[in-house]
Amino acid sequence: MNIALKEGERLDDLHRNGYKIIQNPAKFCFGMDAALLSGFAKVHKGQRHLDLCSGNGVIPILLAAKTKGDSFWGIEIQKEMAEMANRSIALNSIGDKVKVMQGDIRDNILPAASFDVVTANPPYIEVGGGEQSPSGAKAIARHEIMCTLEDVIKAATRLLVSKGHFYMVHRPQRMAEIFVLFEKYGLAAKILRLVQSKVDTPPNLMLIAATRGGGRHLKMLAPLVIYGDDGKYTKEVYDIYYE
Amino acid sequence: MNIALKEGERLDDLHRNGYKIIQNPAKFCFGMDAALLSGFAKVHKGQRHLDLCSGNGVIPILLAAKTKGDSFWGIEIQKEMAEMANRSIALNSIGDKVKVMQGDIRDNILPAASFDVVTANPPYIEVGGGEQSPSGAKAIARHEIMCTLEDVIKAATRLLVSKGHFYMVHRPQRMAEIFVLFEKYGLAAKILRLVQSKVDTPPNLMLIAATRGGGRHLKMLAPLVIYGDDGKYTKEVYDIYYE
Repeated sequence: MNIALKEGERLDDLHRNGYKIIQNPAKFCFGMDAALLSGFAKVHKGQRHLDLCSGNGVIPILLAAKTKGDSFWGIEIQKEMAEMANRSIALNSIGDKVKVMQGDIRDNILPAASFDVVTANPPYIEVGGGEQSPSGAKAIARHEIMCTLEDVIKAATRLLVSKGHFYMVHRPQRMAEIFVLFEKYGLAAKILRLVQSKVDTPPNLMLIAATRGGGRHLKMLAPLVIYGDDGKYTKEVYDIYYE
Repeated sequence: MNIALKEGERLDDLHRNGYKIIQNPAKFCFGMDAALLSGFAKVHKGQRHLDLCSGNGVIPILLAAKTKGDSFWGIEIQKEMAEMANRSIALNSIGDKVKVMQGDIRDNILPAASFDVVTANPPYIEVGGGEQSPSGAKAIARHEIMCTLEDVIKAATRLLVSKGHFYMVHRPQRMAEIFVLFEKYGLAAKILRLVQSKVDTPPNLMLIAATRGGGRHLKMLAPLVIYGDDGKYTKEVYDIYYE
């Protein structure tokens, strides 16, 4: 299929099923956090998946490549991002199971309790909590301008079926708030994995799995270490990207 | 000073200031968690410290050796443990600044807002959450029979001065509850350090610092790794015990 790239866009290889993705460095390119979330989230055969704050759709597209789920939806507030995501979906000829809709997760446009798995790689930075990013699109992707952590957790809980799974990547600095908001909305944290550059550096990302309802005991996994002593990706990270 | 050991007791070296501690393997011996907590907690010159669930007083005795605090109190519910702690204190001739009182932290016997630093190495296991330990004294030290996590956090908050510091060692499985209870009682989590046996094993202890009141952003430290590839203590752990 011939999909025209717009000015400033490029086509990147996802190293999965031959899938490609349209990105625009001035607006949004997916980062390692999205790749790691796609390796952490589990979508089982026949399950319905939804990705919140979906950007250029990298999470639903990667999960469509990696799992046997039934459908992979994304919701993205920025019209141009959602449109870019749907061009990538068309390019990969996966429109029968992957779709990114433009919409605001605060608007309750999707029916409650309708997804088995919800993922989110939301904006990390509280408004006022850091320097504002210069570009509008980038700022919305990075800062909690259009949706806060609470909006994400509230929407995820509402959209999940009972005992459905929520997977999120975020910064460990926000960990206390994340657990408090899980409690407030009725998500039970189940698995926590911290991500660190090297074996002796502080974690800079957290991957967390929760269920809608259920017991509250948390299982912690060994840290996910990005770089080995040789400065190259560890085997685990290499496999998330390329295997 | 000549302090008689009772049947079943032994005298262990704390490797600090020549201090020794009385222990009874059938009832309570301090573990690595207490040693790590004594390396994590900060007591500054002139500050008043209190240790909750103090057992044989190892935390106040170690902090009296390691820091320039003004006073180091402990509160312990088991009369025979508090008595054992006070014999160790007498043995080390530090009764002018260290004292372990027998009492129940739920009873509000100490005045509110009277300590700069509170520490706790509380029982980790919820009642019904694991096999009950056979001996009464050991069971009380390990299981939440006489005090729950909530009792500890509630008491710590009540006893701390405004902006006072709370340091606790616990199991990561309870992390979600810990953050939720901090929020409930008004403690702000500040520093989290996870402890793992090796660089590639899951954390099995967590060291957490919080303040009474204050902002909610959490700083995570690099994991504290206990054993190196050679199977010996890492330098950091060795230093906590012996330097």
